Amino acid sequence: MVAKKVKRKTKKVKKKKKARRIAKKPRKAENNANKSELGITIKKDDDFSEWYTQVIQKAELIEYSPVSGCMVIRPYAYSIWEAVQEFMDKEIKKMGIQNAYFPLFIPESLLRKEQEHVEGFTPEVAWVTEHGTSKFEERLAIRPTSETIMYASYRKWIRSYKDLPLRLNQWCNVVRWEFKHPVPFLRTREFLWQEGHTAFANKEEAEKEVLEILNLYTRVFEELYAIPVLRGRKTDSEKFAGAVYTDSVEVLMPNGKAIQGGTSHFLGQNFSKAFDISFLDKKGKKQFVYQNSWGLSTRTIGIMIAVHGDDKGLVLPPRIAPIHIIIVPILFSNKPTINKKIIELSKKIKKELKTLRVELDNRPDYSPGFKFNYWELKGVPLRIEIGPKDIKKQQVVLVRRDTGIKEALPVKELVVRTIKILADIQDNLYNKAKKFLDKSIVKVNSMNEFKKVINKGKIAFTPWCNSEECEADIRDKTGAKSLNIPFKQPVIKGKCFCGCGRKAEKMVYFARSY
Amino acid sequence: MVAKKVKRKTKKVKKKKKARRIAKKPRKAENNANKSELGITIKKDDDFSEWYTQVIQKAELIEYSPVSGCMVIRPYAYSIWEAVQEFMDKEIKKMGIQNAYFPLFIPESLLRKEQEHVEGFTPEVAWVTEHGTSKFEERLAIRPTSETIMYASYRKWIRSYKDLPLRLNQWCNVVRWEFKHPVPFLRTREFLWQEGHTAFANKEEAEKEVLEILNLYTRVFEELYAIPVLRGRKTDSEKFAGAVYTDSVEVLMPNGKAIQGGTSHFLGQNFSKAFDISFLDKKGKKQFVYQNSWGLSTRTIGIMIAVHGDDKGLVLPPRIAPIHIIIVPILFSNKPTINKKIIELSKKIKKELKTLRVELDNRPDYSPGFKFNYWELKGVPLRIEIGPKDIKKQQVVLVRRDTGIKEALPVKELVVRTIKILADIQDNLYNKAKKFLDKSIVKVNSMNEFKKVINKGKIAFTPWCNSEECEADIRDKTGAKSLNIPFKQPVIKGKCFCGCGRKAEKMVYFARSY
Repeated sequence: MVAKKVKRKTKKVKKKKKARRIAKKPRKAENNANKSELGITIKKDDDFSEWYTQVIQKAELIEYSPVSGCMVIRPYAYSIWEAVQEFMDKEIKKMGIQNAYFPLFIPESLLRKEQEHVEGFTPEVAWVTEHGTSKFEERLAIRPTSETIMYASYRKWIRSYKDLPLRLNQWCNVVRWEFKHPVPFLRTREFLWQEGHTAFANKEEAEKEVLEILNLYTRVFEELYAIPVLRGRKTDSEKFAGAVYTDSVEVLMPNGKAIQGGTSHFLGQNFSKAFDISFLDKKGKKQFVYQNSWGLSTRTIGIMIAVHGDDKGLVLPPRIAPIHIIIVPILFSNKPTINKKIIELSKKIKKELKTLRVELDNRPDYSPGFKFNYWELKGVPLRIEIGPKDIKKQQVVLVRRDTGIKEALPVKELVVRTIKILADIQDNLYNKAKKFLDKSIVKVNSMNEFKKVINKGKIAFTPWCNSEECEADIRDKTGAKSLNIPFKQPVIKGKCFCGCGRKAEKMVYFARSY
Repeated sequence: MVAKKVKRKTKKVKKKKKARRIAKKPRKAENNANKSELGITIKKDDDFSEWYTQVIQKAELIEYSPVSGCMVIRPYAYSIWEAVQEFMDKEIKKMGIQNAYFPLFIPESLLRKEQEHVEGFTPEVAWVTEHGTSKFEERLAIRPTSETIMYASYRKWIRSYKDLPLRLNQWCNVVRWEFKHPVPFLRTREFLWQEGHTAFANKEEAEKEVLEILNLYTRVFEELYAIPVLRGRKTDSEKFAGAVYTDSVEVLMPNGKAIQGGTSHFLGQNFSKAFDISFLDKKGKKQFVYQNSWGLSTRTIGIMIAVHGDDKGLVLPPRIAPIHIIIVPILFSNKPTINKKIIELSKKIKKELKTLRVELDNRPDYSPGFKFNYWELKGVPLRIEIGPKDIKKQQVVLVRRDTGIKEALPVKELVVRTIKILADIQDNLYNKAKKFLDKSIVKVNSMNEFKKVINKGKIAFTPWCNSEECEADIRDKTGAKSLNIPFKQPVIKGKCFCGCGRKAEKMVYFARSY
């Protein structure tokens, strides 16, 4: 199996004015479309925010809706979510967790049962107050998360140690009416997620699950999205409202802002005491359950767009790409016989690659050049081009989206080779992102160094005193927040980096973040 | 393969007082549990409503929530919905329809764009008016259905004939704050469904799809739920608010009330004109699209419970049963060696039947009798009992949930035989329901006959003048509504059955209904 670098035949063809590519649309309109409508008109490094906005719209991932902060997830993006769902759903079911569905509405009195929880969430709650022409006696919160509505049921279902563990998950929409500027996928007022809610007879089992879920979230990022994460425990000021502690996976975005990718909370007995979720143990003694909750959302799609995309648009890791391979036949108006053969071969190849997600772009109204741009913008990992010369040689040309590298390949080697290249692309994307992350983490020991690192859009890894006042002070002075505290900690000597004079307790990641 | 009828060994065992079944709980408590907590205490024919309420709770299908009309769908019921989703999702994707997700919130002004639609839905809309401590400038409707929010996007996406057809579906929650008494699954204020929304360049394509979807819904009922349906077109007074016409599948419940099972609407150009969804056709002329919408919901689970359940509880058709086969080992406290063999065989059988959904009820705290009742209540189609005698004979006992028929079977015949029996159960449930439906449809020609039939809880099939006034009058006088108008119509002579004096136009189904 020899992978030869080939010069693109279509470029040569362009020079031969006699042979015109089949395209009903006039060339001029098409070029305009390429430049203004279709293509990304800004470089990712020049203006990340504008680049992101263009990619999500032009690659047909989202549409803005008339309600600010609520976005339409278009089919191409939704099928990425479906791939994540398919993977995760299987894994959580293997763990013995079952799916269920709890109501969207939470009566205000129920939401108020756990003190820290209500304080954390009420500023962002959307309230239902009327139905038809009537008013509700009590306002109904639209779930920002479902602890309170779910645990009202858990109280009824859990009586004996035999009812434990109780491990449920739901795939649903939630609403958090944040005041911050909405960014599609990354911070939207309605989003889709899964939320797991589990109850155990003892602390050990519960805490074991917290980590198992964090491992699952790590796999979603690393294996599916090809994105490395920072794993660790949130500081007290950044933990979930109502949790004993929160473990998280964090990602660094190309614009130097970090973002929380998924969280797994140990709730301890905070909610079980507030909701009276108790059971009789084997000795007949009343005990409160230990609980966890954990969630991963459509935000992950936005993170993936940001991490892998390039100046041409989306770059999708094969594991979650709705289309693995796009076949583009290169046809010429003056070669009907060979065109027929090209189409035949294209169809044959599509059939042979049926274990992969392969599409054939047969649209008569668009030129090959337009199609190349279109599918590059859409981030399809691999393109197969088939032109007149390829027919003679019984070969095709493969083009990788991640590197742009082209190779000509005998048709008979295609099945084995494409699977190999797709795996390579997945690895390459991960490795590239890993390099970026690794070089972005800088150990610092003083506030001066810290500020420099933060201002460069990097992550400061630094000894810290673990006090909430200190963290608030750092945020005020630098705009940076703690991401998390890695599980493996070195022996720490010396004082907190910020000059507060306290003894350093933990090595922590700090960065500007979403 | 010989299927022998066997007398239940456990019954004999009961008489032998020496051998005690292993059960840590005292027998008395267990019996109490059987009678009061676990078992259904009312006959389905005696009080259907109370029977239904007991079944959905005791079989752990739903839990009431603090918000009236909003129910928790517990894992056992949710997995039935997952089976329906899995089937339907594959089928609609085969048709070329893609999944997407549109916002939960619809601004009031948008909901008001299509006149009939807004009149139909506003009395039932739940309104969001506040977020945090602020008020919204414009009220937001929680989607009762998503035509209006989706078509605001369709308007942007559809420009040319090349953008058509546009065929999207979403799996989501919707809210309709009905005043009628809520009944879990059958009429809840929040429910889960899929809603398909499609746009076509011409009427023919659109109308073709309306029927394709109705066929799909028919398959969900007939093939998955094992329930026969009445297919036809809704009368004008019963069609979807905003549709040109609505086709439906209707089911007769055992209490003599009919219920709408799924609807497929031809919207024509009603919404495309209201929302200005237009395209340039091949000649460059502006045209409005033709649209459909269609939906099937978790209501279907309630219909299935009602149709197939019996005095012992749920009876689940194998196609949607979360568990196909429950293995109950019959152990005795004085036979540890044979107990071990029974457990070994149980596990071996579970492994051999791995293409089916098989569970082994190994719980030490419950007796076989308790387990039989428990899994019968849960409607598991087939039970495998393995006791000491079976070990000697290398056989097991199969018990069908639908008929109660038992047969002893050599272990080596199990794989083939269970698959066959499960298929038989599926057929038997369908045939039983079909018989009930067929004998419940009565042709009538006069108002007197009509009233008698309706009062017996049957369906009147009757020649009718197709006028809205007449239908309203019939409803007032008898409480019966039209279900639908079958597609195949005989030649009709004579007048409307109700005595209005008008010429009969159509043969129509009427019944009391949900």
